[in-house]
Amino acid sequence: MKKIFCIAFCFIAAIAGAQVKEDFVPASNVQPGKQYPQVNSERCVRVKVSAPDAKYVQLDIGGVKYDLRKDADGSWIGESGPQDEGFHYYQLNIDGASVPDPSSLYYYGASRWGSGVDVPAADEDFYAVKNVPQGEIREIYYWSQISQSMRHTFVYVPAEYDKNPTKRYPVLYLQHGGGENEYGWPQQGKTAQIMDNLIAAGKAVPFIIVMENGSVTMPRPAGAPAGAPQGQRPAGAPQGQRPAAPQGQGGRPAGGMMGGFDFAGAFGNVLVNETIPMIDARFRTIPDSAHRAMAGLSMGGMQTKSICLAHPDVFSNIGIFSGGTITVSDADNTPTFRQTNKLVFVSFGSRELENRVPGFGDGTDPIQETTELKASGANAHYYISPGTAHEWLSWRRALYNFAQLLFK
Amino acid sequence: MKKIFCIAFCFIAAIAGAQVKEDFVPASNVQPGKQYPQVNSERCVRVKVSAPDAKYVQLDIGGVKYDLRKDADGSWIGESGPQDEGFHYYQLNIDGASVPDPSSLYYYGASRWGSGVDVPAADEDFYAVKNVPQGEIREIYYWSQISQSMRHTFVYVPAEYDKNPTKRYPVLYLQHGGGENEYGWPQQGKTAQIMDNLIAAGKAVPFIIVMENGSVTMPRPAGAPAGAPQGQRPAGAPQGQRPAAPQGQGGRPAGGMMGGFDFAGAFGNVLVNETIPMIDARFRTIPDSAHRAMAGLSMGGMQTKSICLAHPDVFSNIGIFSGGTITVSDADNTPTFRQTNKLVFVSFGSRELENRVPGFGDGTDPIQETTELKASGANAHYYISPGTAHEWLSWRRALYNFAQLLFK
Repeated sequence: MKKIFCIAFCFIAAIAGAQVKEDFVPASNVQPGKQYPQVNSERCVRVKVSAPDAKYVQLDIGGVKYDLRKDADGSWIGESGPQDEGFHYYQLNIDGASVPDPSSLYYYGASRWGSGVDVPAADEDFYAVKNVPQGEIREIYYWSQISQSMRHTFVYVPAEYDKNPTKRYPVLYLQHGGGENEYGWPQQGKTAQIMDNLIAAGKAVPFIIVMENGSVTMPRPAGAPAGAPQGQRPAGAPQGQRPAAPQGQGGRPAGGMMGGFDFAGAFGNVLVNETIPMIDARFRTIPDSAHRAMAGLSMGGMQTKSICLAHPDVFSNIGIFSGGTITVSDADNTPTFRQTNKLVFVSFGSRELENRVPGFGDGTDPIQETTELKASGANAHYYISPGTAHEWLSWRRALYNFAQLLFK
Repeated sequence: MKKIFCIAFCFIAAIAGAQVKEDFVPASNVQPGKQYPQVNSERCVRVKVSAPDAKYVQLDIGGVKYDLRKDADGSWIGESGPQDEGFHYYQLNIDGASVPDPSSLYYYGASRWGSGVDVPAADEDFYAVKNVPQGEIREIYYWSQISQSMRHTFVYVPAEYDKNPTKRYPVLYLQHGGGENEYGWPQQGKTAQIMDNLIAAGKAVPFIIVMENGSVTMPRPAGAPAGAPQGQRPAGAPQGQRPAAPQGQGGRPAGGMMGGFDFAGAFGNVLVNETIPMIDARFRTIPDSAHRAMAGLSMGGMQTKSICLAHPDVFSNIGIFSGGTITVSDADNTPTFRQTNKLVFVSFGSRELENRVPGFGDGTDPIQETTELKASGANAHYYISPGTAHEWLSWRRALYNFAQLLFK
């Protein structure tokens, strides 16, 4: 009831230009020395930009465009309605141009580098930078023979990694969503902060996390027209290196193919045949399936399902965040799954289940499916993030909960 | 003569809306899937942005605003005059709003995250990502007791670092310029690519590079008004932890103070008393002054001079890129300098010397000064980057040349 009142109040206040609650403070996403975006206690977002000759300026957030007001000094200022707790992509619309807010930090999502704002969450302490032993995010490039290109990857190592020069560690391969890239988990995902805090509190065992780019641009076959766009395979071109995808079950999309886009085949090939051997050679890993996990959000969750069911000998631990479930029939139809799998973790934001996002809430119930999987003998867990949608706070919380179950 | 013709041609062509040379290709700084900014063989930069309701749109680069033309589809498109080879910050001006180009990658400089474009350089191979043994950029946080805050730092380690678990390495502390931050050297500076390529070619010995944020926000003293802006010390507040700055020579600014801004004192204190001990504890360094260098560009070069002359027992190797020189009297007036210093490297872009940038080309001649320093017995070198100004190609080349002299 309180929430409905707040939504109605902020919305009407914003439309009418009436006063919203004047306790705005700069968000954590302001650039050094800048003051906007700001957030108030009603979780409304305020932006301000100088555009003296503009006819109109809007704040575009959460699928809604909010008109800004022009100040006497040529600045435009205004507020959104209340947002969910957590991280949201946004942009400004200046006379029809969709541009980043020049005051905010930038993140890659929605297929562009652009603005983001964190609405403080009641539980934000779990992803804060704190004075605890700090791990590292390591940025590396490596050569991919399959894609004939240098690939760019981030690797989290726990704080103790260099202090224990002979100890070996389990590895989690952790994937971003559609329209995002390998920067997603280190930046908006707060991976290092979540893990450092968990490990310092004794709630997670130390492990390595590899954050890859989930798309693979395949090289142009010899003889293809030079003008063909890079990364598109001409029709009929050999797909020789794509491993066989598992068969879909019960009307679900066949593993690896979604709307005709081969979202897991080429990536799964690179991941299993190039990334994992590179990581096992370069880092002190425990190179067996029991100590290897894959997880991902949204598209990355679908890739995780597809790749893990195709390679149950490679990954014994599975996390799917807002990207589907592992059903009893998935498990029964995957050879060796019942022997090799050690953990299945499925999560959603509560608003995703309320809203039944197409493709995720497809009439089935992930809680029921995961409960059934557990009853069938799997070590299956689910987590529902309260009050969040298909956004990063759902996935920060998913990692926080998944990490506490992993490799124990 | 050819250059003057090209400048005049592109400039007139841009103003008149006449055809510039139509061999534009996307720059290396386009976002994934985007096509702009582009650069042609005359080194003109072309941008395109959708802004259907805008009255005017301009490309703001190199201190000049170039008007864009409106296409029938509501897009604005246009070109700059020819730019120097190398990296340039730029922005769009949409009806008076200075905003990042929504198609470009973003970099921190000019005190904001914003657009940048690389005009291909004839020698760009030295900073390209190539299939050679790859080092890592490691992102770390550490607690600073002096500033009472977590500091954020990037550390480059060479490719062999984890393959030689008992070998110890020299360290270079490498600083950005004014209005930039710790992202400058890893991103626009191409530090890892320059070093990986140099080491693979046997032209540099492997060493560690620490890239710090050169500004330190000091904590508010107890009892200061709560409303005082963070990071500003109220007048009369204790400055107890600032080490004594060396005396300036010959009318130059006294080391550590520039226009009243204490740009090296607090940072030097953190660097010497906190960063170096942290790095020496966390990485396998050779923790003596002979195997420790400091270098920086512009403001970072002035910090380097100030800190190295105040601490000749800490740093025996000095690099100053577009930030001044070490004179004979600097050397003679610094106790132990003549015994401890192993290398002085000074560089400028040739256009800086042509243009005599205030504060850098202050009537003195850095080539002459460095030649005199060498004649006085120091291992002093200078490098002039051809055809570049106070910009990143000057500094990429400076690092490339400096690294080949270091620790040999």
